[in-house]
Amino acid sequence: MMNIHKFIMPEIIFGNGAIDQVGNSCLRLGASNVLIVSDQGISEAGWLEAVMKSCEKAGLKYETFIDITVNPKDIEVDKGRDLYLQKECDAVIGIGGGSAIDAAKAIALLATNGGNIHDYEGVDKITHPLPPQVMIPTTAGSGSEVSQFSIILNTEQKKKMTIISKSLIPDIAIIDPETLVTKSAHLTASTGIDVLTHGIESYISLAATPLTDVYARNSIALVANNLRPSVASKLNKEAKTNMAMASLQAGIAFSNAILGAVHAMSHAVGGRYPILHGDVNSILLPHVMEFNLIANPPKFADIAYQLGVKACDMSHMEAGKTAIEFVKQLIHDVGAPTKLSEIDVKKEEIPQMSISALNDACMITNPRDVTVETIEELFRKAW
Amino acid sequence: MMNIHKFIMPEIIFGNGAIDQVGNSCLRLGASNVLIVSDQGISEAGWLEAVMKSCEKAGLKYETFIDITVNPKDIEVDKGRDLYLQKECDAVIGIGGGSAIDAAKAIALLATNGGNIHDYEGVDKITHPLPPQVMIPTTAGSGSEVSQFSIILNTEQKKKMTIISKSLIPDIAIIDPETLVTKSAHLTASTGIDVLTHGIESYISLAATPLTDVYARNSIALVANNLRPSVASKLNKEAKTNMAMASLQAGIAFSNAILGAVHAMSHAVGGRYPILHGDVNSILLPHVMEFNLIANPPKFADIAYQLGVKACDMSHMEAGKTAIEFVKQLIHDVGAPTKLSEIDVKKEEIPQMSISALNDACMITNPRDVTVETIEELFRKAW
Repeated sequence: MMNIHKFIMPEIIFGNGAIDQVGNSCLRLGASNVLIVSDQGISEAGWLEAVMKSCEKAGLKYETFIDITVNPKDIEVDKGRDLYLQKECDAVIGIGGGSAIDAAKAIALLATNGGNIHDYEGVDKITHPLPPQVMIPTTAGSGSEVSQFSIILNTEQKKKMTIISKSLIPDIAIIDPETLVTKSAHLTASTGIDVLTHGIESYISLAATPLTDVYARNSIALVANNLRPSVASKLNKEAKTNMAMASLQAGIAFSNAILGAVHAMSHAVGGRYPILHGDVNSILLPHVMEFNLIANPPKFADIAYQLGVKACDMSHMEAGKTAIEFVKQLIHDVGAPTKLSEIDVKKEEIPQMSISALNDACMITNPRDVTVETIEELFRKAW
Repeated sequence: MMNIHKFIMPEIIFGNGAIDQVGNSCLRLGASNVLIVSDQGISEAGWLEAVMKSCEKAGLKYETFIDITVNPKDIEVDKGRDLYLQKECDAVIGIGGGSAIDAAKAIALLATNGGNIHDYEGVDKITHPLPPQVMIPTTAGSGSEVSQFSIILNTEQKKKMTIISKSLIPDIAIIDPETLVTKSAHLTASTGIDVLTHGIESYISLAATPLTDVYARNSIALVANNLRPSVASKLNKEAKTNMAMASLQAGIAFSNAILGAVHAMSHAVGGRYPILHGDVNSILLPHVMEFNLIANPPKFADIAYQLGVKACDMSHMEAGKTAIEFVKQLIHDVGAPTKLSEIDVKKEEIPQMSISALNDACMITNPRDVTVETIEELFRKAW
């Protein structure tokens, strides 16, 4: 707390029906011709149309680009950039899960900074301002709508590149819980465990501050109370609204406090396999929590408290262990995967994945030191 | 929670020595010739010089304007605006308590919007973008460095005008706890109770949201634990840092959730008497809490919890009453005033002040309905 720390987030518009404000939001940012970046599923669910209508109402021209796939790829970003430049767009809307939003940000980045997306891997490589960006998450998971992160797959090297820069923080994030009702139970569970991972990793991160801690803690409590009901019913709007709020708060926390070993390792897996990011996190989270426990017993005890564990008579270490058991039970109850073997990850890839994880930007803030060997050991435990 | 709500805050730079970043922050916002707005006391404490040095280091031209007084006045704002235009400035730095920062914002407002500051009283009257604004609070009190408020005294009508607009949110807020060590114990107590009032009023405000609640609650806990030690010693840096954080978090909360009857009534008093804003709040807060208690017993019970009251066996109403007793004790312990008669407010002004309070923008979000009569009654109780 004594060091100088920085904290930044976009303007937030949150609530049922908020999606209708996207056109006016772009107008307010000076846009006239917007590139809307999304994916096939969002288009089929009707949310793309809602965005187009709002843009029309605001008198904006727009182009759509819906070729983004799960774990968005450098080649998709290139295509989007080409369309943006060819159509002379001047702003970007991203609507969808973390993949669509991360891709939208990467397109905005290339549009004004030029070069190849590979050039920007790492921290603070962006030199020119980005065009106005308005992001609309539809999964209550990635937090990308408020974060300074974009994760893009390097298709040649089969690895996820973590790009971190304040310039990637959108201007306006529009969170409309109504968009969550079209999600499957599996996707709800997977993205919900991703939110929990964001909350926990940012809370115990070496870069955590009092400004991020309040959101990290509250997001953990919101997930503990609302993820099961949200998975149980597509129509439980209260649970969906609370999960959207949890995702937002965890996103604000991790954008400023960064993450840890779960995400570093998860990026290494996601670079090689077309697997949902949240599913990998769900497998890795309990193992990494066990490993990280000794790095911050008081915060782990508070995680137990936020999860609703009656832990007031326990030592910090005991409470922390109870928190890990709670997380395992939650993962079990929502039907998320628990073993890498379940999702067909090959054991012989462990050494390569461990090296990738060690070099991932998210590993820097993990609260316990790691080596390639400790990462390999964690991957093996997660088999 | 079901309505659409908006949330916005500036970029934050927080920590000891952060004041040195003001020059670069202005540069980053495109400034070349900055107007530095402050007061005599800040100049004497040496903080103005620190800002000037940082501007010089960044290669910026600057002008200084240090004629701001407690409860900043329309005529001071006019003088600052004249200097800004005459010297062709292109950005504003405000350094000081709430008075200096509110005045700096008002100068920035007039610089690009023209007209008289009286024209902008109320909500959303600003039409043109403001020049870049960087604010540095030195009192851990007002929260103005993050808020969409500027409170300026109308000298002719002897009333405080509340100006509310997103445009008044600075671009960057720099919070350097080291600036707090030059504050007197009285000022520390007065501004600290102001922070507590921000936390409590924004938490029970009709416009509170889950995004503001986490900061409001945490700011209350930080004040409960750190205000007494901060008043006790000028050199207790940990307490000062925590009070700076409390002020920041309460400021983020009330900027987005607005305030209530304490501030509406306090503005009415401050419009007529040259009295510290925090001193008036300290007198009014317990009485308004008693009045507001039935409007939200569960949140009052949580306020008790945040204050550190062991209230788990109590009903919400009982816990709420205990919270009010705690606040009275805190005000007593730090030596803040408890009666309007103590600060020489005249009883015959009550009817006029009550009408002013009823029409103040802060009254709209008070959780319990008021009439002129109920406000008069509260003023009388505070005698």
